Amino acid sequence: MNAFSFLSKDRDEGITMVLDKGLSPNFIMDYLRVCGKHIDFVKFGWGTSAVQDRDVVKEKISIYKEYGIKTYPGGTLFEAAFSKGMFDEFLEECKDLGFDGVEISNGSMDLSLEDRKYAIKRAKDEGFIVLTEVGKKSVEKDRELTIGDRIKLINFDLECGSNYVIIEGRESGKCIGLFDEKGNIKKDELEILAKSVDIKKVIFEAPNKNQQVEFILKFGSGVNLGNIAYDEVISLETLRRGLRGDTFGKI
Amino acid sequence: MNAFSFLSKDRDEGITMVLDKGLSPNFIMDYLRVCGKHIDFVKFGWGTSAVQDRDVVKEKISIYKEYGIKTYPGGTLFEAAFSKGMFDEFLEECKDLGFDGVEISNGSMDLSLEDRKYAIKRAKDEGFIVLTEVGKKSVEKDRELTIGDRIKLINFDLECGSNYVIIEGRESGKCIGLFDEKGNIKKDELEILAKSVDIKKVIFEAPNKNQQVEFILKFGSGVNLGNIAYDEVISLETLRRGLRGDTFGKI
Amino acid sequence: MNAFSFLSKDRDEGITMVLDKGLSPNFIMDYLRVCGKHIDFVKFGWGTSAVQDRDVVKEKISIYKEYGIKTYPGGTLFEAAFSKGMFDEFLEECKDLGFDGVEISNGSMDLSLEDRKYAIKRAKDEGFIVLTEVGKKSVEKDRELTIGDRIKLINFDLECGSNYVIIEGRESGKCIGLFDEKGNIKKDELEILAKSVDIKKVIFEAPNKNQQVEFILKFGSGVNLGNIAYDEVISLETLRRGLRGDTFGKI
Repeated sequence: MNAFSFLSKDRDEGITMVLDKGLSPNFIMDYLRVCGKHIDFVKFGWGTSAVQDRDVVKEKISIYKEYGIKTYPGGTLFEAAFSKGMFDEFLEECKDLGFDGVEISNGSMDLSLEDRKYAIKRAKDEGFIVLTEVGKKSVEKDRELTIGDRIKLINFDLECGSNYVIIEGRESGKCIGLFDEKGNIKKDELEILAKSVDIKKVIFEAPNKNQQVEFILKFGSGVNLGNIAYDEVISLETLRRGLRGDTFGKI
Repeated sequence: MNAFSFLSKDRDEGITMVLDKGLSPNFIMDYLRVCGKHIDFVKFGWGTSAVQDRDVVKEKISIYKEYGIKTYPGGTLFEAAFSKGMFDEFLEECKDLGFDGVEISNGSMDLSLEDRKYAIKRAKDEGFIVLTEVGKKSVEKDRELTIGDRIKLINFDLECGSNYVIIEGRESGKCIGLFDEKGNIKKDELEILAKSVDIKKVIFEAPNKNQQVEFILKFGSGVNLGNIAYDEVISLETLRRGLRGDTFGKI
Repeated sequence: MNAFSFLSKDRDEGITMVLDKGLSPNFIMDYLRVCGKHIDFVKFGWGTSAVQDRDVVKEKISIYKEYGIKTYPGGTLFEAAFSKGMFDEFLEECKDLGFDGVEISNGSMDLSLEDRKYAIKRAKDEGFIVLTEVGKKSVEKDRELTIGDRIKLINFDLECGSNYVIIEGRESGKCIGLFDEKGNIKKDELEILAKSVDIKKVIFEAPNKNQQVEFILKFGSGVNLGNIAYDEVISLETLRRGLRGDTFGKI
C-alpha cells in the first residue's frame, strides 16, 4: 500500500518505458523496491548491452523480470546486426540473454520496407514482443521526414504485426521527431498524428518533464511514454496522478 | 575526520535541504556514509511519497534519522490533502510514517491567510517542524507576485510560528521566485528581500550551482539552501568551504 | 565476455577519466561490475575529498584499485595546499590515502613556472603519476589565454615530466578552454593544438556528449577524454565503438 493512500488517484493503464544506459545489478534490485511497480518496459539503450558483460546483462534482465518488467535492447544494436547480415545471431543472443522484446529501427541506416516487414515478422515468429521505431538519429535526416511519412510508417509497422511503435525522441528530446530545437512539442504535427494512428499502440519518447506534462494533458494519464530516465520514474508517476504542480487539478 | 583535514575550512552553521524524488533504501544507507553529515533536511519532493510503498517510506525516513536528518513531505501533498478536507488524516499519516516536519504551501491552489495560519498553528501544535513556502508552481501565476508580496507572506508565516520559510525555486530553478528565465538571481529583488526579512529563517531553493555560488558569496558560507540534488551535496559543501574554483579564495 | 560479442568493435587504446564528486563505497563496488573495465582514471573532483571522511576516501580508492583504476584528487586541492605552503603535507596525505596520482594546476591561483616545474618534479620523485591542467576556472581569466599560451604550457609541462596534460573543461563544458558558450568546440583552435602537441599525452575534459563525439570523430576511438560523468561511461564506450547513432558507421 502506498503512503498517503487516501490521497492517491487512479490513473489509466499505459506504458512507462525506462532507459537503462548502464545501471548496476544491486542498484537495480534496490531501485525496483521503489520504482518497480511503475515500470512496464526497460530498454537497454542503443548498443550499451554490447559493452557490458554477458553475465551482468543476464543478471540485470532477471532482476527486472522479478518485477514483471519486460526488457529489450535498443534498436541500434538490431541495426548493427542486420547491416552485418547477423540478424539470426542477434535474435539467438537476445533469447539467450533473456530479453523479452526486440526493437526494429532504421535510425542510423537505410532499411527497405521489405526488410522491415521481414524483420518484424521474423522476430514475432521467434516469440519476441516487437517494438519498432520511427525516426532518424541524425537531426538533418530526421528533419526530412514529414509527419505524413511518420504516420505512414507507423501504420505500416502495425500492419506488419509490431506490438508498439516508438516515436523517436532520443535521450535529449530536442530537434528530433515531434520536438523542436528547444524540446517543445510541435503541436500541429501531434494533432495530425493523433487523428491518424491508434495512439494506444504508440510510445512517445519523452525524456523531458515538459514533454511528459504535455502528453499527459493531451492524451490522459495513461499515455504511453518512453526514454524516461531511471530517476524520473517517480516524478512521472506523480505527474500521471496529478500529484505534482504541473498536472495538479488538471487531470 | 575528513581527508586532508589540514586544508578544511570551517563554515558558518546553516541548512542544507536535499530533494529526495525517489531514492532507494540501500542506496540511501550507503550514500549517507559520504553525505550524511552535510545534510540537515530531506524533502520527499511534492507528492512522491504517495506513489511509494508505506513500508519503504518508513524505512527511508528511519535511515535518514540515524544521521540526525529531519524529513518532511513536499507541500503539494499538503495541498492535495487540505483541498480535499483531509488535513487531519494528512497529519496523522505524517506522524505514523515518522516525518519530522510538514510543509505548508499554496503553490498549486488558493489558500486564505486564515487557513494558512490555521494550518501552521495546527501542525506546530501536533509537534511538527513547520516549513512554509512562498511562491507558485505556475510561471504565469508566480510572475504576478511582487517582491513585496513575497516579503509580506514570509513575515506573516514567521509570525504564525513557521520555523522556516522556503523561497520557491522548483527543481529547475528557472523562471520562478527570485530566478529569471536563465536561472540567474534577480539581484535587485534579492537586495530588497535581504533587508526586509530575517535571512536566518529563510531557505532559498537553489538547485543550480551558479545560484548556490551567488547565495554563498552574498550571505556567507552558512546561508540556508534547499532543493539540492542528492548528488550535489558534496559539491555544495566544497562551495561553502572555498574548496571549489567558484568560491576559492573568496570565502 | 560482452553480450553480443559478435557485434563488438575493437577500439584504439586511450584513456577514459571519470569524475567522482561524491559516490558511495557500495555503489562504486556495484558500479564497477558494469563500468570498471572501461575506466582508466578516477578524479576525486576539486576539493571533494576534503569534505569526506578519511576512512571512506581510503575505502573508495581501494575499491577502484581492485579494477586497476588509478585515482587522484582534483587540482583545486593541490592549489589549496600549495598556496598555504603545505605541499609536503599534501603529498604525504595523498600517499597515506592511497592516491596514485596528483594533479598540478593553477585554475584558481597564480603559480610561477618555476613553482610549477618544482611541483611536477617533486610529485614525480615521490612516485606519483602527475597530471597537470591547463586553464582557468574563471570564465574571464580563462578567456585571456590564447591557444598559443595553452600550447606553450602543455609542452612546458611535458618537458618537466608531467605524464598527461589535461585541457580544462570543468564539469559544465561551457565557456571554457576549447569550448564556446554553447559547449561547442572551437575547431580552429583545436586544429592548431592538434598540430602543436603530442595528442597522446593530452586528456580533453569533455563532459558533454557532443564534445565526446567530435573528439572521437577527429582523433579516433582512442582519444583521451576526461571529466566523464560516472553514468556516461557506458555511453562513451558505445560512442568509441560505433554502437551509438552519433558515431555508427563513422568509426
